[in-house]
Amino acid sequence: MNFPVAHETMVQTLGNAEVSSPLRSFRPDGFVDEQQRVFLHSQTHEEQAFRDQDVMPPSFERAGPRDPLFFDPAKVTCGIVTCGGLCPGLNDVIRSLTLTSIHGYGVPRVLGFRYGYAGLAADSEAPVELTHDVVDHIHEQGGTMLGSSRGPQPECEIVDTLKKHGVDILFVVGGDGTLRGGRDIAAEITRQGLSISVIGVPKTIDNDLQWVSRSFGFTTAVEEARNAIQSAHIEARGALNGVGLVKLMGRHSGFIAAHASMASSDVNFCLVPEVPFSMDGEDGFLEALVHRLKSRRHAVIVVAEGAGQDLVAAEENQQRDKSGNLKLKDIGVYMRERIDSHLKGLGMEFSMKYIDPSYTIRSLPANAFDSEYCLMLGQHAVHAGMAGRTGMVVGLWNRYFTNMPIELVTRARQQIDPNGPEWHRVLDSTGQRTFSATSPVQE
Amino acid sequence: MNFPVAHETMVQTLGNAEVSSPLRSFRPDGFVDEQQRVFLHSQTHEEQAFRDQDVMPPSFERAGPRDPLFFDPAKVTCGIVTCGGLCPGLNDVIRSLTLTSIHGYGVPRVLGFRYGYAGLAADSEAPVELTHDVVDHIHEQGGTMLGSSRGPQPECEIVDTLKKHGVDILFVVGGDGTLRGGRDIAAEITRQGLSISVIGVPKTIDNDLQWVSRSFGFTTAVEEARNAIQSAHIEARGALNGVGLVKLMGRHSGFIAAHASMASSDVNFCLVPEVPFSMDGEDGFLEALVHRLKSRRHAVIVVAEGAGQDLVAAEENQQRDKSGNLKLKDIGVYMRERIDSHLKGLGMEFSMKYIDPSYTIRSLPANAFDSEYCLMLGQHAVHAGMAGRTGMVVGLWNRYFTNMPIELVTRARQQIDPNGPEWHRVLDSTGQRTFSATSPVQE
Amino acid sequence: MNFPVAHETMVQTLGNAEVSSPLRSFRPDGFVDEQQRVFLHSQTHEEQAFRDQDVMPPSFERAGPRDPLFFDPAKVTCGIVTCGGLCPGLNDVIRSLTLTSIHGYGVPRVLGFRYGYAGLAADSEAPVELTHDVVDHIHEQGGTMLGSSRGPQPECEIVDTLKKHGVDILFVVGGDGTLRGGRDIAAEITRQGLSISVIGVPKTIDNDLQWVSRSFGFTTAVEEARNAIQSAHIEARGALNGVGLVKLMGRHSGFIAAHASMASSDVNFCLVPEVPFSMDGEDGFLEALVHRLKSRRHAVIVVAEGAGQDLVAAEENQQRDKSGNLKLKDIGVYMRERIDSHLKGLGMEFSMKYIDPSYTIRSLPANAFDSEYCLMLGQHAVHAGMAGRTGMVVGLWNRYFTNMPIELVTRARQQIDPNGPEWHRVLDSTGQRTFSATSPVQE
Amino acid sequence: MNFPVAHETMVQTLGNAEVSSPLRSFRPDGFVDEQQRVFLHSQTHEEQAFRDQDVMPPSFERAGPRDPLFFDPAKVTCGIVTCGGLCPGLNDVIRSLTLTSIHGYGVPRVLGFRYGYAGLAADSEAPVELTHDVVDHIHEQGGTMLGSSRGPQPECEIVDTLKKHGVDILFVVGGDGTLRGGRDIAAEITRQGLSISVIGVPKTIDNDLQWVSRSFGFTTAVEEARNAIQSAHIEARGALNGVGLVKLMGRHSGFIAAHASMASSDVNFCLVPEVPFSMDGEDGFLEALVHRLKSRRHAVIVVAEGAGQDLVAAEENQQRDKSGNLKLKDIGVYMRERIDSHLKGLGMEFSMKYIDPSYTIRSLPANAFDSEYCLMLGQHAVHAGMAGRTGMVVGLWNRYFTNMPIELVTRARQQIDPNGPEWHRVLDSTGQRTFSATSPVQE
Repeated sequence: MNFPVAHETMVQTLGNAEVSSPLRSFRPDGFVDEQQRVFLHSQTHEEQAFRDQDVMPPSFERAGPRDPLFFDPAKVTCGIVTCGGLCPGLNDVIRSLTLTSIHGYGVPRVLGFRYGYAGLAADSEAPVELTHDVVDHIHEQGGTMLGSSRGPQPECEIVDTLKKHGVDILFVVGGDGTLRGGRDIAAEITRQGLSISVIGVPKTIDNDLQWVSRSFGFTTAVEEARNAIQSAHIEARGALNGVGLVKLMGRHSGFIAAHASMASSDVNFCLVPEVPFSMDGEDGFLEALVHRLKSRRHAVIVVAEGAGQDLVAAEENQQRDKSGNLKLKDIGVYMRERIDSHLKGLGMEFSMKYIDPSYTIRSLPANAFDSEYCLMLGQHAVHAGMAGRTGMVVGLWNRYFTNMPIELVTRARQQIDPNGPEWHRVLDSTGQRTFSATSPVQE
Repeated sequence: MNFPVAHETMVQTLGNAEVSSPLRSFRPDGFVDEQQRVFLHSQTHEEQAFRDQDVMPPSFERAGPRDPLFFDPAKVTCGIVTCGGLCPGLNDVIRSLTLTSIHGYGVPRVLGFRYGYAGLAADSEAPVELTHDVVDHIHEQGGTMLGSSRGPQPECEIVDTLKKHGVDILFVVGGDGTLRGGRDIAAEITRQGLSISVIGVPKTIDNDLQWVSRSFGFTTAVEEARNAIQSAHIEARGALNGVGLVKLMGRHSGFIAAHASMASSDVNFCLVPEVPFSMDGEDGFLEALVHRLKSRRHAVIVVAEGAGQDLVAAEENQQRDKSGNLKLKDIGVYMRERIDSHLKGLGMEFSMKYIDPSYTIRSLPANAFDSEYCLMLGQHAVHAGMAGRTGMVVGLWNRYFTNMPIELVTRARQQIDPNGPEWHRVLDSTGQRTFSATSPVQE
Repeated sequence: MNFPVAHETMVQTLGNAEVSSPLRSFRPDGFVDEQQRVFLHSQTHEEQAFRDQDVMPPSFERAGPRDPLFFDPAKVTCGIVTCGGLCPGLNDVIRSLTLTSIHGYGVPRVLGFRYGYAGLAADSEAPVELTHDVVDHIHEQGGTMLGSSRGPQPECEIVDTLKKHGVDILFVVGGDGTLRGGRDIAAEITRQGLSISVIGVPKTIDNDLQWVSRSFGFTTAVEEARNAIQSAHIEARGALNGVGLVKLMGRHSGFIAAHASMASSDVNFCLVPEVPFSMDGEDGFLEALVHRLKSRRHAVIVVAEGAGQDLVAAEENQQRDKSGNLKLKDIGVYMRERIDSHLKGLGMEFSMKYIDPSYTIRSLPANAFDSEYCLMLGQHAVHAGMAGRTGMVVGLWNRYFTNMPIELVTRARQQIDPNGPEWHRVLDSTGQRTFSATSPVQE
Repeated sequence: MNFPVAHETMVQTLGNAEVSSPLRSFRPDGFVDEQQRVFLHSQTHEEQAFRDQDVMPPSFERAGPRDPLFFDPAKVTCGIVTCGGLCPGLNDVIRSLTLTSIHGYGVPRVLGFRYGYAGLAADSEAPVELTHDVVDHIHEQGGTMLGSSRGPQPECEIVDTLKKHGVDILFVVGGDGTLRGGRDIAAEITRQGLSISVIGVPKTIDNDLQWVSRSFGFTTAVEEARNAIQSAHIEARGALNGVGLVKLMGRHSGFIAAHASMASSDVNFCLVPEVPFSMDGEDGFLEALVHRLKSRRHAVIVVAEGAGQDLVAAEENQQRDKSGNLKLKDIGVYMRERIDSHLKGLGMEFSMKYIDPSYTIRSLPANAFDSEYCLMLGQHAVHAGMAGRTGMVVGLWNRYFTNMPIELVTRARQQIDPNGPEWHRVLDSTGQRTFSATSPVQE
């Protein structure tokens, strides 16, 4: 992980803050001051170099309510849009953004744009007005009450729509593609000399955004992924040489697979995008599987959807989906077929069950932990918007909520370090050492 | 439903019952007497014909503890085997059979045979001894602690194994293939002049056994199927023209699909094997779907795996699995492809999510309702075995537990009557009238 | 259980049915005819006496859609009221009544009266109009969207309110007190010569209504009660001589306690109102508990709130709550104190945990099984109302839905038969024989 | 929060580490070196004073595997003891300690002492040997397989027992009383010149230990507490002027109450030990409650068990339980009575439901998040023990696992800062501003 230099952590502001915060009356001392910044590193040896040069180590702006504000809340219109795939907690975020705006700041109008950025395009349908009653119970259901879609829309059309509806602060809830879209909208706003704030709430069920300790919905996803693993384990034990194969989300980062494997204790092989592996050969996966079956008569395998992409034979036309994500070939189906033919080839009696729970995970309502986290993210996003911040996202780092430039968090993905303690803990809990030792991490 | 004639309801007995029941001491009046039979019909007009002829209408033997017994429990060895696919409650049944034998009757030895009938074949591994401690917590997990397998084994090998281990009562937990196997084992036993009882506990997650009001695991399956439908609904509402397509179990009978559709309230189309339907044409499914999307912008479809088999184009080699079941072609995949190309052909923007939760349903532990039911089935199976009954299954009919010949319950499948109140209630709750009206039930 | 004579099963009708059912168009043959009645008994020996006298045994009217109807649905206003304590499924029933009326029959107006019969009193607030959108998601939450209250209101005030709002069919959802209120309202309507139908949907979480096989919400309650027992078991095992004591609902009938004890498998003592027991003496409960602790070091006790009322010392002023129910003294607290002082008196080290989960059970949303059942009850209640039935409730008996006079179902409570198979199964699963044998059932 | 000075963060070690770690073979570079320390603070302004004085700010030892080790794993006997009240995750910790010792380090013997420190007293029963098979499934159940008890035992007896069984590393899982006991055992060991390591795993469902970001079981507890609040909300809305009152755990710190209130979104008043409040007077709680009921007709109140202790009238003899904790008077019962008499005094119709879910929370199995966390805590505790650390606990701080002296973490409690952002977020989400403004935080 490359530490950014100081200017890369600076969040853009629309202008001077001169409006007294309505929160002032009942919370005289609860405001963040600009001296409160949150260090990126938290270990002594990481700081030594800065200390040696007598330079302050890099830090993030701390999130929270500020006083004075840039916007006069009584005159503000907020807009909310949710983009990309479903994720537990989307409705909690919409609810928190709405209620914090209305009840916390006295904002008179909050608009919800339908079906992602498509709802901000030139010919889109009218937004929904979000009131207390409209959002009161939405968090009890999964999904997003606003609907969602993938893919960008022309920035100038979006800015035109914002102007048309008088939106002062646009909250964008989405993944890295969406957030880059938000950054471009903010840039277009700047180009046009407007005072519209664009605040991102990072959404990634895969937990693959840098500088965000944990993305909302992630623990809910891990909980349900554990249930799928439990099913695979029950099926595997229910047959002679039973094999339970579970494909979990994780295009480029295997956090769900890794954490669900640790939360469960029934996983024997956990395969993630960050750690290449071979199927064949004496040290390959198939040999390790056969060894496991011979000694224990069942096996549970968890594979992240982005794992082993080099194995899934290169095909002519790799395609991208509407969000520009590379379409991955299906490692789950590949593994199923390879295992099936290998075990059949050995004349081994076995029974394999393949479980792919993806939509049942994405569409869950948030657990208590994620619900609370979404509440806080929404509160902090509103605080940032009112203070005139723009082109940024809210995050959580070293126990504090932070404001970070979109540019910074979308620059690279967060991934599991194959040589770090997190992956070592996975290896310890699965016991898959022998197998993984055969796969050089760097090729 | 054709009512059986009287002799078809008669349960076979190994011989005279002359041993005093150990239950007698603490339950002097709690025994079933043979006058207590349970009517098959429960409506007045069904009985009229019998009444007119002054004939007693058909009835089942009532299940329950009997006194005296055929076997002397203190000298009995019980055996248990579980066959076929997983189903919630298998471990509860094993546990109830074991504890009722040991604690209720004082049976000294209960053996569990591993991996279905394979565990009773000539060269099978030794059975597990089932004690209080071994089975105490097994019901907290899904699956079967004994393992399972599909397919029959030669009856004479099985009887040899039973003789080898001194088994007096064999409890067979499985579906119609398994039960027919049990009937054949009982016949072989008779042929050899042995006194070994074979008692079936009917297992069918599809609830498709005749004369069994409800099979164990069914309500647990419906509960989880409802969760899958809920996911599909959330996904469908989360996108413009979102389509949620859920494939549920039900090879020949659509009970899970029908009941989960009623338990949920988000299903717009429920398709089952009993009710043929057409995809194309003005009155076909695809047109109805387009109409639904245009008026409501999302749709949820539930399809039982055995529905629309005539639609899935006839292919050359239909195959059977090891249990002899016809391998069904995948209606879920077929529907997904047809819907996809149809909507694309119309140039409609849409987003379809396909959910196939099968193994996550089968492998669940039983809910409270099914747990209790499994407890009772196990108790009644032991009561029947001790009384010397054989070649029979325990069931539940008109509020009473019953003993029924295997022959009778495996003679035909229980199915939804397309003209009956159950299906009408489904139509009322989905509102799919217009569409289904286009499909003549009889062709 | 005393069987009613034939006239007691006759349901009252407002007048001749002459309106063609709107269901006729799409369901030509799906109507109930009056020959389809459901037998009360289902065992051969129960019928013998009637057969000997050549009399048709007693039967219930079968529920279901009829054609023609008494009311013209296009001109009907329906009213709904929910009374008494919360129960899982109330919102499902409201929803089913509303949607069946609106979508099934084309009823133009459905009114919900707030807070029980209080919402029908002279000075009550205006009812809520129930539409598709209002009720669409209510079943996802526990409780009742209409609110509830206990206690009756003057019948003439209620009838005045019904007239004022033009209500033609009033659906009353509640327990025996509420249903008797409904009967009295129907009587007042008759006295005034009006054509207003009163249809009850029986609600009793305790499952204590006669001739109703199972009341809605009961299986959900048993499921959650099992969770409470599970907690008690974990606590009991977590300490030396740990005692887990769980008080469950059941004022006069111990069905929840009995079924949760069977669904769980960790209960050692199950105490219900129907089976008296003594605390003291050689054969009393306390001695049995000490014996259990000495041999197994932990014990789990389930007690229904109405059990052992003779033991809770008679106090001066027994009071009734607003619904007229006798206020029970708290057997849970009594048991806790008696056990505590007894074990302390013996100088035994122990740790007791007392769990009383009542409100967390009552307020749950319905499980899938109950949801579906509520759907059907609502459908059948609307069918009955449209056909002009009044003063009746819908039920389920011997696999068919039935219409029954309120008078009949409120005449006596359904209770566990201490000499019947249900209680014997409880004894078998708890193993509490020795203890319970000491308590003569009849004193 | 007072930052400790550097020497207070130093962890004691039994002696020189000279044994090569068995982890070395498959993980050559995965060891912690002593330069990797974790800063206590994470904000720039907190560090400024140290920077100004050119002093390294305080930091904790980073936890993790070390090489070389102090103990030779092949000769080590580990002991495990669990003390105090139940908490979700205890069995996960026992399992992780056992499996990491056995499979990670090759430890030949792991002993579990029964029923807390009582199992280490002079006359205690023999410990259980913990093997792979014994612990394999224990995490699927709540509670602790070893049992627990409160209260200390003489240190010399405990050390004698350790010597008798040849224990080299004792893992102590418990709260602050237990950990202080562990510290005293370590001191006695030092006094006797022995080489036995004592490693604590901090257990506090209230999350009230300093320098531990989050204690295991806490998120599981918050999840279930949210369910109890949901019940209270449903009950409150189900009656006119319904009041739902929930008492949650939290003797001295209101974290469960605060976080469950945020995770839920139905709480109107959250009362915690850290923020005094008055019941009476114009600005008191009762007036605020009446105002809420008048405007919204229902209210939900969450009160931590340690809140408002000054209000519960001072009684003569305050008592301590066996662990030395002050016995708290019951604020829940007090509130219920005060609210009841106040609303009755106003002649207000209302319905109050009181929910106290404590044991049902404590006895749950851990959710996925806590399960994984327990796995990691167990792994790090074993790493610390093998390296010869003693008198310490493992924790998590600023994204890294840490080793900390017991002395430091038990010196003061972690509490909610009534002027900090956490409490402000609670106020924002409950909207209880007006009321809480009446209670001066400092008196």
